[in-house]
Amino acid sequence: MRLSRYFLPVLKETPAEAQIVSHRLMLRAGMIKQASAGIYSWLPLGFRVLERIQQIVHEEQERAGHVPLLMPTLQSADLWRESGRYDAYGEEMLRIKDRGGRDLLFSPTAEELITDIFRSYVKSYKDLPLTLYQIQWKFRDEIRPRFGVMRGREFLMKDGYNFDLTKEAALHAYNRHLVSYLRTYERMGLKAIPMRADSGPIGGEDTHEFLVLAETGESEVFYDSAVTDLTFGDRVIDYDSVEECAGVLEEFTSRYARTDETHDPALFDAIPEERRRTARGIEVGQIFYFGTKYSEPLGATVQDAEGNKVPVHMGSHGIGVSRLLGALIEANHDDKGIIWPEGVTPFHCGIVNLKQGDAAADAACENLYDQLRTAGLEPLYDDRDERAGAKFATMDLIGLPWRITVGPRGLKNGVVELTSRRTGESEEMAPEAAVQRIVGIYRDHP
Amino acid sequence: MRLSRYFLPVLKETPAEAQIVSHRLMLRAGMIKQASAGIYSWLPLGFRVLERIQQIVHEEQERAGHVPLLMPTLQSADLWRESGRYDAYGEEMLRIKDRGGRDLLFSPTAEELITDIFRSYVKSYKDLPLTLYQIQWKFRDEIRPRFGVMRGREFLMKDGYNFDLTKEAALHAYNRHLVSYLRTYERMGLKAIPMRADSGPIGGEDTHEFLVLAETGESEVFYDSAVTDLTFGDRVIDYDSVEECAGVLEEFTSRYARTDETHDPALFDAIPEERRRTARGIEVGQIFYFGTKYSEPLGATVQDAEGNKVPVHMGSHGIGVSRLLGALIEANHDDKGIIWPEGVTPFHCGIVNLKQGDAAADAACENLYDQLRTAGLEPLYDDRDERAGAKFATMDLIGLPWRITVGPRGLKNGVVELTSRRTGESEEMAPEAAVQRIVGIYRDHP
Repeated sequence: MRLSRYFLPVLKETPAEAQIVSHRLMLRAGMIKQASAGIYSWLPLGFRVLERIQQIVHEEQERAGHVPLLMPTLQSADLWRESGRYDAYGEEMLRIKDRGGRDLLFSPTAEELITDIFRSYVKSYKDLPLTLYQIQWKFRDEIRPRFGVMRGREFLMKDGYNFDLTKEAALHAYNRHLVSYLRTYERMGLKAIPMRADSGPIGGEDTHEFLVLAETGESEVFYDSAVTDLTFGDRVIDYDSVEECAGVLEEFTSRYARTDETHDPALFDAIPEERRRTARGIEVGQIFYFGTKYSEPLGATVQDAEGNKVPVHMGSHGIGVSRLLGALIEANHDDKGIIWPEGVTPFHCGIVNLKQGDAAADAACENLYDQLRTAGLEPLYDDRDERAGAKFATMDLIGLPWRITVGPRGLKNGVVELTSRRTGESEEMAPEAAVQRIVGIYRDHP
Repeated sequence: MRLSRYFLPVLKETPAEAQIVSHRLMLRAGMIKQASAGIYSWLPLGFRVLERIQQIVHEEQERAGHVPLLMPTLQSADLWRESGRYDAYGEEMLRIKDRGGRDLLFSPTAEELITDIFRSYVKSYKDLPLTLYQIQWKFRDEIRPRFGVMRGREFLMKDGYNFDLTKEAALHAYNRHLVSYLRTYERMGLKAIPMRADSGPIGGEDTHEFLVLAETGESEVFYDSAVTDLTFGDRVIDYDSVEECAGVLEEFTSRYARTDETHDPALFDAIPEERRRTARGIEVGQIFYFGTKYSEPLGATVQDAEGNKVPVHMGSHGIGVSRLLGALIEANHDDKGIIWPEGVTPFHCGIVNLKQGDAAADAACENLYDQLRTAGLEPLYDDRDERAGAKFATMDLIGLPWRITVGPRGLKNGVVELTSRRTGESEEMAPEAAVQRIVGIYRDHP
């Protein structure tokens, strides 16, 4: 993308309404614009990151064998009356009347609708196990929306639902989701710790929240510092293997890690003192097993091998897609701006032309731009007629992890400069070497 | 994808509520399920086609230099009061009150919000031209939703908006959109004819609708049969060239082609009789130039080169993404089911194992499956323990353009069968040759 043809409205001033750094930086970097309270437009740069995060979520869900579909944003109230949640949900549910006077609602979650889809088609245990998921806009009418996309009203969520014949099979689905979520967050460059949590309005027995440690987190968390050393890494896992998935659950959840809702001071105090930690965390996902809580009232049954009609065992599993942008920035920024992890960066690298209009510099930049695109990467080429300082400030603010700086002086010696946004370190090298280096970096971050 | 692990709830019965063939086939092929009147869930197969269509739309918009972003589904009524459309829009606008009593609405289109984004950031003619677009869910509270996704209430639309300094520049943007739309529909295997139309509630002077000819179309259309011979083909176009884009407009719109709203019998009768055609058409897109209709009331002005503040010239441009699935099926089906054009097919080919459990047949199918996936294609492998007739009926119903049939008898002679869904013709060949053939076909349909 050439910046002269892009729409990147960066702000020089820090917007007064933004209380936390991710909100400030998303506004300043021209990623979002508030449309009304808790409702945002995703400007081109923000939209690119949102798309990138969705792609990673889709890839990891499909790797785990889960099947994508898409449910509508507006749902009939009738289904929610069947489950009893229409009255129970409270004021956070946005209730709507259409022109015919029928009650609709803007979906805050979709247990009822997915269960209705399931019960309409699936009749036999032979069609199980089945996990369906979507990435769709949701609405929760928060009384005090704040912190930008971290606590917005209209938000993008991945919500998945497993249908299994037995509790054991459903718990395997639970574990499979835990594994897929660990992979998902790690690919984004995030450390998200699964913590025992409270089930809230979804209900259910087992639930873990995934929390990113950050000072601005809304939850107080208590954990054994040993959990922060765990990484999933590039191990290969068989998602069909009950043992392998259970092993990962055991490894990642056996140490103490809880939110304040489930905190048990006695257990916490049993941790060796030097490993006891209290911090704040941002919730970026949650998995639930709730058995037959929805399948019974909604009549989602299958015939088992003996011919008995039995309600299916279910769970639901969510990733806060739009709020992840906030969490990513809370965890990756400095005084100059955002520092995107390679896995989610909106552009793979920046190209800064120090002297737009200089024939050699222009040609070298065009060349780099073409070579990177030919290699399947998307650079952001700052081809504006601006002074170098302003170009650097913009690149630092929007946080592309790598920058290639091209100027007439370097080119005389056959070099450009490659700079890491994270470390600030620069290295001179031939343009071809810079391209090779960038290509190599992203080969490791597919 | 292995069918045994997919969710493809095909129906044997023809649903009584569906009046037109695309609606019937989408229900029977397990692509959609009605959630409430005019509101649909996109089951996995339907979701895949929806994604594929979005991808083509994005690629062609970005090729034309248009910049993607995403606006929220819910908008504040205030902006619509500024433009005067809040009261003018009528009952098709879904009006909502949030818990704080504020007026929201579910966006039926987004001229106001995009103009607000523009006016907040863009102050100089130097930042023009600019075209921003999104693909987002919209809602129109149709009093009689029908024909499945063809006239639904919640629907997915691509809506783009150009901002230009002068009328001439805005007309170039209009022409650029026409070119990009011609390419978009052709890539999907659709012949969509631009016809002079009426501007309706969007307003404006110039507008063309793109219509797909089909018996079930909602509009009566009148045209010179010469327009149906025009194809854009694989010509290369410079979207920055005013002349080239204007040339395409001239080529594709100079012959008579109008909807009933703008039909002029006198002009129509001037066409040689053997080329005069009356038919029905499905509207799949529309482009508008409306000048300063929104920029003036909303104060979207820029400084021109002389320092004068002038309102920008705008247009808006829409593609009915979800309704395209209906139009595609209306134009591509037979008695057995859907026939997807290669450009939009949910899976590139089907693999039918005639004898699941036969060691040779299973191994050959697995091999084909792996080879096609390694080549970057996504086959649908029917690995269920079903009789051949049922497998063929499912493949024919869901309409994958190519099918490879694998059975023990053929394998003894070293062959499988490759069948075209469209022609029904089959050819025996070695499995490797079938893979090569399929790979070659999709190389021509990127």
